[in-house]
Amino acid sequence: MRFTYMTLFPQLIEGYFQDSILKRAIDKGIFSFDFCNPRDFSSSRHSKVDDTAAGGGAGMLMNPQPLFDALNQFPNAYVIFTTPVGKPFVQNDAKRLAKKEHIIFVSGRYEGIDERVIERYADELFSIGDYILTGGELPSLVMSDAIARNIEGVLGNSTSLDTESFETLLLEAPSFTKPANFKNLTTPSEFLKGNHSKIATLKNALSIAKTKYFRPGQLLKYKINMRS
Amino acid sequence: MRFTYMTLFPQLIEGYFQDSILKRAIDKGIFSFDFCNPRDFSSSRHSKVDDTAAGGGAGMLMNPQPLFDALNQFPNAYVIFTTPVGKPFVQNDAKRLAKKEHIIFVSGRYEGIDERVIERYADELFSIGDYILTGGELPSLVMSDAIARNIEGVLGNSTSLDTESFETLLLEAPSFTKPANFKNLTTPSEFLKGNHSKIATLKNALSIAKTKYFRPGQLLKYKINMRS
Repeated sequence: MRFTYMTLFPQLIEGYFQDSILKRAIDKGIFSFDFCNPRDFSSSRHSKVDDTAAGGGAGMLMNPQPLFDALNQFPNAYVIFTTPVGKPFVQNDAKRLAKKEHIIFVSGRYEGIDERVIERYADELFSIGDYILTGGELPSLVMSDAIARNIEGVLGNSTSLDTESFETLLLEAPSFTKPANFKNLTTPSEFLKGNHSKIATLKNALSIAKTKYFRPGQLLKYKINMRS
Repeated sequence: MRFTYMTLFPQLIEGYFQDSILKRAIDKGIFSFDFCNPRDFSSSRHSKVDDTAAGGGAGMLMNPQPLFDALNQFPNAYVIFTTPVGKPFVQNDAKRLAKKEHIIFVSGRYEGIDERVIERYADELFSIGDYILTGGELPSLVMSDAIARNIEGVLGNSTSLDTESFETLLLEAPSFTKPANFKNLTTPSEFLKGNHSKIATLKNALSIAKTKYFRPGQLLKYKINMRS
Protein backbone atom coordinates (compact mmCIF):
# COMPACT_ATOMS: atom_id res chain seq x y z
CA MET A 1 0.00 0.00 0.00
CA ARG A 2 1.30 3.42 -0.98
CA PHE A 3 0.03 6.90 -0.12
CA THR A 4 1.11 9.88 -2.20
CA TYR A 5 0.35 13.32 -0.81
CA MET A 6 -0.05 15.97 -3.48
CA THR A 7 0.46 19.16 -1.52
CA LEU A 8 2.19 22.53 -1.57
CA PHE A 9 3.19 21.94 2.07
CA PRO A 10 4.71 18.47 2.58
CA GLN A 11 6.21 19.61 5.91
CA LEU A 12 2.70 19.73 7.39
CA ILE A 13 2.30 16.03 6.75
CA GLU A 14 5.62 14.29 7.20
CA GLY A 15 5.88 14.91 10.95
CA TYR A 16 2.88 12.71 11.54
CA PHE A 17 4.77 9.59 10.48
CA GLN A 18 7.69 10.13 12.85
CA ASP A 19 6.33 8.05 15.71
CA SER A 20 3.66 5.67 16.95
CA ILE A 21 1.83 2.82 15.23
CA LEU A 22 2.13 4.18 11.69
CA LYS A 23 5.87 4.63 11.93
CA ARG A 24 6.19 0.99 13.00
CA ALA A 25 4.03 -0.09 10.05
CA ILE A 26 6.27 1.89 7.68
CA ASP A 27 9.40 0.40 9.26
CA LYS A 28 7.88 -3.07 8.78
CA GLY A 29 7.24 -2.29 5.09
CA ILE A 30 3.45 -2.60 5.36
CA PHE A 31 2.91 0.74 3.70
CA SER A 32 4.90 3.67 2.38
CA PHE A 33 4.29 7.32 1.68
CA ASP A 34 5.74 9.99 -0.55
CA PHE A 35 5.03 13.50 -1.75
CA CYS A 36 4.35 15.26 -5.00
CA ASN A 37 4.42 19.06 -4.92
CA PRO A 38 2.36 20.71 -7.70
CA ARG A 39 4.76 23.65 -7.54
CA ASP A 40 7.44 21.44 -9.10
CA PHE A 41 5.19 21.04 -12.15
CA SER A 42 4.29 24.68 -12.68
CA SER A 43 5.20 25.85 -16.16
CA SER A 44 5.04 29.51 -15.16
CA ARG A 45 8.18 31.52 -14.73
CA HIS A 46 7.95 31.89 -10.94
CA SER A 47 6.48 28.44 -10.24
CA LYS A 48 3.13 30.07 -9.68
CA VAL A 49 0.38 27.68 -8.59
CA ASP A 50 -2.57 29.97 -7.86
CA ASP A 51 -4.62 32.76 -9.38
CA THR A 52 -7.71 34.86 -8.73
CA ALA A 53 -11.18 33.35 -9.10
CA ALA A 54 -13.12 33.80 -12.35
CA GLY A 55 -16.19 35.91 -11.62
CA GLY A 56 -14.60 37.50 -8.57
CA GLY A 57 -14.58 36.58 -4.89
CA ALA A 58 -12.02 36.70 -2.10
CA GLY A 59 -8.83 34.70 -2.17
CA MET A 60 -6.86 32.63 -4.62
CA LEU A 61 -7.51 29.25 -6.25
CA MET A 62 -5.08 26.54 -7.33
CA ASN A 63 -4.46 26.61 -11.11
CA PRO A 64 -5.24 23.63 -13.33
CA GLN A 65 -1.89 23.32 -15.15
CA PRO A 66 0.44 22.26 -12.29
CA LEU A 67 -2.11 19.78 -10.93
CA PHE A 68 -2.88 18.28 -14.36
CA ASP A 69 0.81 17.72 -15.03
CA ALA A 70 1.44 16.35 -11.54
CA LEU A 71 -1.52 13.96 -11.66
CA ASN A 72 -0.53 12.72 -15.11
CA GLN A 73 2.52 11.13 -13.44
CA PHE A 74 0.26 8.57 -11.78
CA PRO A 75 -2.18 7.12 -14.30
CA ASN A 76 -2.94 4.03 -12.21
CA ALA A 77 -3.39 5.55 -8.77
CA TYR A 78 -6.72 6.08 -7.06
CA VAL A 79 -7.20 9.83 -6.66
CA ILE A 80 -8.99 11.34 -3.67
CA PHE A 81 -9.68 15.04 -3.28
CA THR A 82 -10.38 16.46 0.14
CA THR A 83 -13.00 19.18 0.06
CA PRO A 84 -15.76 20.43 2.35
CA VAL A 85 -18.23 19.66 -0.44
CA GLY A 86 -17.33 15.97 -0.73
CA LYS A 87 -19.39 13.16 0.68
CA PRO A 88 -18.76 12.47 4.37
CA PHE A 89 -15.87 10.05 4.94
CA VAL A 90 -16.97 7.21 7.25
CA GLN A 91 -15.53 4.04 8.72
CA ASN A 92 -16.75 1.86 5.85
CA ASP A 93 -14.74 4.03 3.43
CA ALA A 94 -11.66 3.46 5.58
CA LYS A 95 -12.12 -0.32 5.37
CA ARG A 96 -12.89 -0.30 1.67
CA LEU A 97 -9.95 1.92 0.70
CA ALA A 98 -7.51 -0.20 2.77
CA LYS A 99 -7.62 -2.65 -0.16
CA LYS A 100 -6.26 -0.16 -2.75
CA GLU A 101 -2.65 -0.38 -3.91
CA HIS A 102 -1.89 3.30 -4.37
CA ILE A 103 -3.92 6.29 -3.23
CA ILE A 104 -3.13 9.92 -4.04
CA PHE A 105 -4.56 12.51 -1.67
CA VAL A 106 -4.81 15.92 -3.33
CA SER A 107 -4.78 18.72 -0.76
CA GLY A 108 -6.34 22.02 -1.69
CA ARG A 109 -5.01 25.25 -0.23
CA TYR A 110 -6.08 28.89 -0.42
CA GLU A 111 -9.74 29.09 -1.48
CA GLY A 112 -9.65 25.69 -3.19
CA ILE A 113 -8.92 24.02 -6.50
CA ASP A 114 -10.11 24.90 -10.01
CA GLU A 115 -13.12 22.63 -10.60
CA ARG A 116 -11.73 21.33 -13.90
CA VAL A 117 -9.00 19.42 -12.05
CA ILE A 118 -11.58 17.69 -9.88
CA GLU A 119 -13.81 16.85 -12.85
CA ARG A 120 -10.95 15.29 -14.75
CA TYR A 121 -9.08 13.37 -12.05
CA ALA A 122 -11.18 12.68 -8.97
CA ASP A 123 -12.08 9.09 -8.19
CA GLU A 124 -13.71 10.26 -4.97
CA LEU A 125 -14.32 13.53 -3.16
CA PHE A 126 -14.45 13.38 0.61
CA SER A 127 -15.18 15.71 3.49
CA ILE A 128 -14.02 14.58 6.93
CA GLY A 129 -16.58 16.72 8.79
CA ASP A 130 -18.71 19.86 8.78
CA TYR A 131 -16.04 22.42 9.62
CA ILE A 132 -13.60 24.46 7.60
CA LEU A 133 -9.84 23.98 7.67
CA THR A 134 -6.93 25.98 6.28
CA GLY A 135 -6.15 23.24 3.74
CA GLY A 136 -6.55 19.62 2.73
CA GLU A 137 -3.46 18.31 4.51
CA LEU A 138 -5.18 17.35 7.78
CA PRO A 139 -8.11 15.66 6.00
CA SER A 140 -5.55 13.70 3.96
CA LEU A 141 -3.81 12.60 7.14
CA VAL A 142 -7.07 11.75 8.89
CA MET A 143 -8.16 9.53 6.00
CA SER A 144 -4.71 7.93 5.76
CA ASP A 145 -4.70 7.13 9.45
CA ALA A 146 -8.21 5.65 9.37
CA ILE A 147 -7.37 3.64 6.24
CA ALA A 148 -3.92 2.50 7.40
CA ARG A 149 -5.17 0.94 10.62
CA ASN A 150 -7.40 -1.32 8.54
CA ILE A 151 -4.46 -2.68 6.54
CA GLU A 152 -3.60 -6.19 7.72
CA GLY A 153 -0.65 -6.13 10.11
CA VAL A 154 -0.74 -2.43 11.05
CA LEU A 155 -2.45 -2.87 14.42
CA GLY A 156 -0.65 -5.33 16.65
CA ASN A 157 -3.79 -6.98 17.94
CA SER A 158 -6.35 -7.39 15.19
CA THR A 159 -9.15 -8.15 17.68
CA SER A 160 -9.02 -4.47 18.63
CA LEU A 161 -10.82 -3.74 15.38
CA ASP A 162 -14.01 -5.56 16.30
CA THR A 163 -15.49 -3.90 19.39
CA GLU A 164 -14.96 -0.28 18.46
CA SER A 165 -17.39 2.58 18.01
CA PHE A 166 -18.92 2.64 14.49
CA GLU A 167 -18.12 -1.03 13.94
CA THR A 168 -21.41 -2.00 15.58
CA LEU A 169 -23.43 1.23 15.08
CA LEU A 170 -23.30 1.70 18.88
CA LEU A 171 -20.75 3.97 20.54
CA GLU A 172 -18.23 2.14 22.66
CA ALA A 173 -19.00 1.75 26.40
CA PRO A 174 -16.88 3.68 28.92
CA SER A 175 -13.66 1.85 29.84
CA PHE A 176 -11.77 1.64 33.11
CA THR A 177 -8.28 0.48 34.00
CA LYS A 178 -6.36 0.19 37.30
CA PRO A 179 -6.57 1.06 40.11
CA ALA A 180 -10.15 0.06 40.92
CA ASN A 181 -10.28 2.93 43.39
CA PHE A 182 -8.45 6.13 42.45
CA LYS A 183 -9.03 9.09 44.77
CA ASN A 184 -12.39 7.56 45.74
CA LEU A 185 -13.46 7.33 42.08
CA THR A 186 -14.30 3.69 41.56
CA THR A 187 -14.65 1.34 38.62
CA PRO A 188 -18.22 -0.06 38.30
CA SER A 189 -18.15 -3.14 40.55
CA GLU A 190 -19.51 -5.46 37.84
CA PHE A 191 -16.32 -4.83 35.83
CA LEU A 192 -14.24 -6.20 38.71
CA LYS A 193 -16.18 -9.38 39.48
CA GLY A 194 -15.10 -11.14 36.31
CA ASN A 195 -18.47 -12.55 35.18
CA HIS A 196 -18.02 -12.00 31.45
CA SER A 197 -21.63 -12.38 30.44
CA LYS A 198 -22.72 -9.84 33.08
CA ILE A 199 -19.94 -7.48 31.95
CA ALA A 200 -21.05 -7.83 28.33
CA THR A 201 -24.66 -7.04 29.29
CA LEU A 202 -23.60 -3.98 31.28
CA LYS A 203 -21.31 -2.73 28.50
CA ASN A 204 -24.12 -3.10 25.99
CA ALA A 205 -26.50 -1.13 28.23
CA LEU A 206 -23.86 1.60 28.66
CA SER A 207 -23.26 1.68 24.88
CA ILE A 208 -26.96 2.12 24.23
CA ALA A 209 -27.22 4.91 26.82
CA LYS A 210 -24.21 6.73 25.36
CA THR A 211 -25.46 6.38 21.80
CA LYS A 212 -28.93 7.57 22.79
CA TYR A 213 -27.42 10.70 24.30
CA PHE A 214 -24.77 11.59 21.70
CA ARG A 215 -26.14 10.04 18.46
CA PRO A 216 -29.88 9.42 18.62
CA GLY A 217 -30.04 8.84 14.84
CA GLN A 218 -27.47 6.08 15.07
CA LEU A 219 -29.38 4.32 17.85
CA LEU A 220 -32.41 4.19 15.59
CA LYS A 221 -30.36 2.51 12.84
CA TYR A 222 -29.09 0.02 15.43
CA LYS A 223 -32.61 -0.86 16.54
CA ILE A 224 -33.74 -1.34 12.95
CA ASN A 225 -30.72 -3.60 12.32
CA MET A 226 -31.45 -5.72 15.40
CA ARG A 227 -35.02 -6.26 14.29
CA SER A 228 -34.17 -7.40 10.78
CA MET B 1 -4.93 32.30 22.52
CA ARG B 2 -2.99 29.27 23.69
CA PHE B 3 -3.34 25.60 22.74
CA THR B 4 -1.81 22.92 24.96
CA TYR B 5 -1.62 19.40 23.54
CA MET B 6 -1.66 16.72 26.18
CA THR B 7 -0.25 13.74 24.34
CA LEU B 8 2.20 10.86 24.60
CA PHE B 9 3.40 11.71 21.06
CA PRO B 10 4.13 15.44 20.67
CA GLN B 11 6.17 14.70 17.52
CA LEU B 12 2.96 13.80 15.70
CA ILE B 13 1.66 17.31 16.26
CA GLU B 14 4.53 19.77 16.13
CA GLY B 15 5.30 19.27 12.43
CA TYR B 16 1.95 20.74 11.50
CA PHE B 17 2.96 24.19 12.71
CA GLN B 18 6.16 24.37 10.66
CA ASP B 19 4.65 26.11 7.64
CA SER B 20 1.65 27.84 6.11
CA ILE B 21 -0.95 30.17 7.62
CA LEU B 22 -0.71 28.87 11.17
CA LYS B 23 3.05 29.30 11.32
CA ARG B 24 2.63 32.92 10.25
CA ALA B 25 -0.01 33.43 12.95
CA ILE B 26 2.36 32.00 15.56
CA ASP B 27 5.20 34.19 14.29
CA LYS B 28 2.88 37.20 14.59
CA GLY B 29 2.08 36.26 18.20
CA ILE B 30 -1.63 35.68 17.52
CA PHE B 31 -1.58 32.30 19.14
CA SER B 32 0.90 29.90 20.72
CA PHE B 33 1.05 26.20 21.40
CA ASP B 34 2.86 23.90 23.81
CA PHE B 35 2.85 20.30 24.94
CA CYS B 36 2.26 18.40 28.14
CA ASN B 37 3.22 14.72 28.13
CA PRO B 38 1.32 12.61 30.69
CA ARG B 39 4.32 10.29 30.82
CA ASP B 40 6.26 13.05 32.61
CA PHE B 41 3.67 12.90 35.40
CA SER B 42 3.58 9.14 35.89
CA SER B 43 4.38 8.16 39.48
CA SER B 44 5.18 4.58 38.50
CA ARG B 45 8.73 3.34 38.41
CA HIS B 46 8.96 2.97 34.63
CA SER B 47 6.81 6.00 33.74
CA LYS B 48 3.99 3.64 32.87
CA VAL B 49 0.89 5.36 31.47
CA ASP B 50 -1.36 2.46 30.49
CA ASP B 51 -2.84 -0.74 31.82
CA THR B 52 -5.31 -3.49 30.90
CA ALA B 53 -9.05 -2.81 30.90
CA ALA B 54 -11.14 -3.75 33.94
CA GLY B 55 -13.56 -6.51 32.95
CA GLY B 56 -11.34 -7.66 30.08
CA GLY B 57 -11.18 -6.69 26.42
CA ALA B 58 -8.37 -6.21 23.91
CA GLY B 59 -5.73 -3.54 24.26
CA MET B 60 -4.57 -1.08 26.87
CA LEU B 61 -6.15 2.03 28.37
CA MET B 62 -4.52 5.22 29.64
CA ASN B 63 -4.28 5.26 33.46
CA PRO B 64 -5.95 7.96 35.53
CA GLN B 65 -2.98 9.01 37.69
CA PRO B 66 -0.66 10.60 35.08
CA LEU B 67 -3.56 12.45 33.44
CA PHE B 68 -5.00 13.69 36.75
CA ASP B 69 -1.60 15.08 37.79
CA ALA B 70 -0.95 16.59 34.35
CA LEU B 71 -4.38 18.23 34.13
CA ASN B 72 -4.05 19.64 37.65
CA GLN B 73 -1.29 21.90 36.30
CA PHE B 74 -3.89 23.91 34.36
CA PRO B 75 -6.83 24.72 36.63
CA ASN B 76 -8.09 27.58 34.43
CA ALA B 77 -7.82 26.03 30.98
CA TYR B 78 -10.75 24.78 28.94
CA VAL B 79 -10.32 21.01 28.56
CA ILE B 80 -11.40 19.18 25.41
CA PHE B 81 -11.20 15.41 25.00
CA THR B 82 -11.18 13.90 21.54
CA THR B 83 -13.12 10.66 21.39
CA PRO B 84 -15.29 8.83 18.85
CA VAL B 85 -18.13 8.96 21.38
CA GLY B 86 -18.13 12.76 21.72
CA LYS B 87 -20.60 15.06 20.05
CA PRO B 88 -19.77 15.91 16.44
CA PHE B 89 -17.47 18.94 16.13
CA VAL B 90 -18.96 21.48 13.70
CA GLN B 91 -18.13 24.92 12.33
CA ASN B 92 -20.10 26.73 15.04
CA ASP B 93 -17.92 25.05 17.68
CA ALA B 94 -14.84 26.32 15.85
CA LYS B 95 -16.18 29.89 15.98
CA ARG B 96 -17.30 29.66 19.58
CA LEU B 97 -14.04 28.16 20.84
CA ALA B 98 -11.95 30.80 19.01
CA LYS B 99 -12.92 33.13 21.90
CA LYS B 100 -11.31 30.99 24.64
CA GLU B 101 -7.99 32.04 26.17
CA HIS B 102 -6.45 28.62 26.73
CA ILE B 103 -7.61 25.25 25.44
CA ILE B 104 -6.11 21.88 26.36
CA PHE B 105 -6.65 19.06 23.88
CA VAL B 106 -6.28 15.68 25.56
CA SER B 107 -5.35 12.98 23.04
CA GLY B 108 -6.20 9.40 23.86
CA ARG B 109 -4.01 6.56 22.56
CA TYR B 110 -4.25 2.78 22.71
CA GLU B 111 -7.85 1.73 23.40
CA GLY B 112 -8.73 5.04 25.07
CA ILE B 113 -8.71 6.80 28.42
CA ASP B 114 -10.02 5.64 31.80
CA GLU B 115 -13.52 7.15 32.04
CA ARG B 116 -12.81 8.70 35.45
CA VAL B 117 -10.42 11.21 33.83
CA ILE B 118 -13.08 12.33 31.41
CA GLU B 119 -15.73 12.59 34.13
CA ARG B 120 -13.51 14.75 36.29
CA TYR B 121 -11.86 17.08 33.77
CA ALA B 122 -13.74 17.31 30.48
CA ASP B 123 -15.37 20.61 29.59
CA GLU B 124 -16.34 19.12 26.22
CA LEU B 125 -16.01 15.80 24.39
CA PHE B 126 -15.78 15.97 20.62
CA SER B 127 -15.65 13.58 17.72
CA ILE B 128 -14.47 14.98 14.37
CA GLY B 129 -16.27 12.33 12.30
CA ASP B 130 -17.60 8.77 12.15
CA TYR B 131 -14.35 6.93 11.61
CA ILE B 132 -11.72 5.46 13.89
CA LEU B 133 -8.19 6.80 14.18
CA THR B 134 -5.05 5.50 15.90
CA GLY B 135 -5.17 8.31 18.47
CA GLY B 136 -6.50 11.73 19.40
CA GLU B 137 -3.62 13.73 17.91
CA LEU B 138 -5.17 14.32 14.46
CA PRO B 139 -8.57 15.27 15.92
CA SER B 140 -6.76 17.74 18.20
CA LEU B 141 -5.00 19.25 15.19
CA VAL B 142 -8.18 19.35 13.11
CA MET B 143 -10.05 21.22 15.85
CA SER B 144 -7.08 23.58 16.42
CA ASP B 145 -6.87 24.40 12.73
CA ALA B 146 -10.63 25.03 12.46
CA ILE B 147 -10.60 27.15 15.62
CA ALA B 148 -7.39 29.05 14.80
CA ARG B 149 -8.62 30.32 11.45
CA ASN B 150 -11.51 32.00 13.27
CA ILE B 151 -9.18 33.97 15.54
CA GLU B 152 -9.03 37.59 14.44
CA GLY B 153 -5.93 38.23 12.34
CA VAL B 154 -5.06 34.63 11.44
CA LEU B 155 -6.47 34.74 7.91
CA GLY B 156 -5.08 37.57 5.86
CA ASN B 157 -8.36 38.46 4.21
CA SER B 158 -11.20 38.24 6.71
CA THR B 159 -13.86 38.35 3.98
CA SER B 160 -12.77 34.79 3.09
CA LEU B 161 -14.66 33.62 6.15
CA ASP B 162 -18.08 34.69 4.92
CA THR B 163 -18.85 32.77 1.74
CA GLU B 164 -17.58 29.34 2.72
CA SER B 165 -19.31 25.99 2.94
CA PHE B 166 -21.13 25.53 6.29
CA GLU B 167 -21.24 29.29 6.88
CA THR B 168 -24.49 29.50 4.92
CA LEU B 169 -25.75 25.87 5.24
CA LEU B 170 -25.16 25.48 1.49
CA LEU B 171 -22.01 23.89 0.10
CA GLU B 172 -19.78 26.29 -1.79
CA ALA B 173 -20.23 26.55 -5.59
CA PRO B 174 -17.47 25.18 -7.86
CA SER B 175 -14.69 27.71 -8.47
CA PHE B 176 -12.56 28.41 -11.53
CA THR B 177 -9.37 30.36 -12.08
CA LYS B 178 -7.26 31.13 -15.15
CA PRO B 179 -6.96 30.26 -17.97
CA ALA B 180 -10.59 30.43 -19.13
CA ASN B 181 -9.80 27.64 -21.59
CA PHE B 182 -7.40 24.96 -20.44
CA LYS B 183 -7.03 21.94 -22.77
CA ASN B 184 -10.54 22.72 -24.07
CA LEU B 185 -11.99 22.61 -20.57
CA THR B 186 -13.70 25.95 -20.15
CA THR B 187 -14.88 28.11 -17.29
CA PRO B 188 -18.68 28.64 -17.36
CA SER B 189 -19.09 31.68 -19.59
CA GLU B 190 -21.22 33.58 -17.08
CA PHE B 191 -18.21 33.70 -14.74
CA LEU B 192 -16.21 35.55 -17.40
CA LYS B 193 -18.74 38.20 -18.39
CA GLY B 194 -18.44 40.11 -15.14
CA ASN B 195 -22.13 40.69 -14.39
CA HIS B 196 -21.94 40.23 -10.64
CA SER B 197 -25.61 39.74 -9.99
CA LYS B 198 -25.83 37.05 -12.69
CA ILE B 199 -22.71 35.37 -11.28
CA ALA B 200 -24.21 35.41 -7.79
CA THR B 201 -27.44 33.84 -9.09
CA LEU B 202 -25.50 31.13 -10.94
CA LYS B 203 -23.30 30.39 -7.92
CA ASN B 204 -26.34 30.08 -5.71
CA ALA B 205 -27.97 27.65 -8.15
CA LEU B 206 -24.75 25.59 -8.30
CA SER B 207 -24.52 25.60 -4.49
CA ILE B 208 -28.06 24.34 -4.19
CA ALA B 209 -27.43 21.59 -6.77
CA LYS B 210 -24.24 20.48 -5.01
CA THR B 211 -25.89 20.48 -1.59
CA LYS B 212 -28.86 18.53 -2.91
CA TYR B 213 -26.54 15.84 -4.25
CA PHE B 214 -24.03 15.56 -1.40
CA ARG B 215 -26.02 16.71 1.65
CA PRO B 216 -29.76 16.45 1.14
CA GLY B 217 -30.41 16.89 4.88
CA GLN B 218 -28.53 20.18 4.89
CA LEU B 219 -30.53 21.50 1.94
CA LEU B 220 -33.71 20.87 3.90
CA LYS B 221 -32.36 22.93 6.80
CA TYR B 222 -31.46 25.70 4.35
CA LYS B 223 -34.98 25.76 2.90
CA ILE B 224 -36.54 25.90 6.36
CA ASN B 225 -34.18 28.77 7.26
CA MET B 226 -35.09 30.71 4.13
CA ARG B 227 -38.79 30.41 4.88
CA SER B 228 -38.56 31.64 8.47
